[in-house]
Amino acid sequence: MLTEIQEGKALNPVVKHITQEKINLYAEASGDFNPIHLDESFAATTPLGGTIAHGMLNLAYVSEMMTSAFGQSWLSEGKLRAKFKEPARPGDTLTINGKIDCVEQKDGVSYANCNFECLNQKGETIVTGETIIKLSSDKE
Amino acid sequence: MLTEIQEGKALNPVVKHITQEKINLYAEASGDFNPIHLDESFAATTPLGGTIAHGMLNLAYVSEMMTSAFGQSWLSEGKLRAKFKEPARPGDTLTINGKIDCVEQKDGVSYANCNFECLNQKGETIVTGETIIKLSSDKE
Repeated sequence: MLTEIQEGKALNPVVKHITQEKINLYAEASGDFNPIHLDESFAATTPLGGTIAHGMLNLAYVSEMMTSAFGQSWLSEGKLRAKFKEPARPGDTLTINGKIDCVEQKDGVSYANCNFECLNQKGETIVTGETIIKLSSDKE
Repeated sequence: MLTEIQEGKALNPVVKHITQEKINLYAEASGDFNPIHLDESFAATTPLGGTIAHGMLNLAYVSEMMTSAFGQSWLSEGKLRAKFKEPARPGDTLTINGKIDCVEQKDGVSYANCNFECLNQKGETIVTGETIIKLSSDKE
């Protein structure tokens, strides 16, 4: 957990290596067996050119970074906005970076606004987005 | 895939039953082994009162609904906004509903705006949100 919530503070990055085995396991866990994730010969014939990781696997890594930083404040009522730019593929190494953009008060409640980005090993942006975390309320 | 993209059209709902086994498998697939998801005796001592599903597992089900409706348009460059309201727990049955809110043209590109909600068997809202899907461009 972060010991200091302050604007500009970087969150601990998360680094993950994507493999076809991880994608297969994610398909089983999520129940999403779309062949674009699993069937290399099918996926090669599509405009995506090969299998891709489930987009929500990338967001799972974002969520892991947020949970490390904010714990239950993130887990119980976070907000997320994400823009998928490029798919992640087997063999990619993803780095998820995040930062506290600002801390705001609204109706006596304090919120942290963070931004994040998920990059692959070539520096290509896979996902970008923002999160909002309720930090504390003076009504509680 | 949807054969007709029109405003007000409901997407095929997705129904999923949450079990501790599925959460354990998701932890393995995502690499997120936070004990709030896995350790029932630890989780019982927290304000959440028991283990909860990873929030991104709920979004995986949303993504499955979106992929069924929009295929690669969703997979390659979708946008998502989500608000986590309540955690999903082992034993819950989740229903994910979605609808095309509006279809918009912007700079010669056509986009579908959808909303979604994920409810449990008691009718409690687990997640709500919106998605945007690029449908076609007259520049391509």
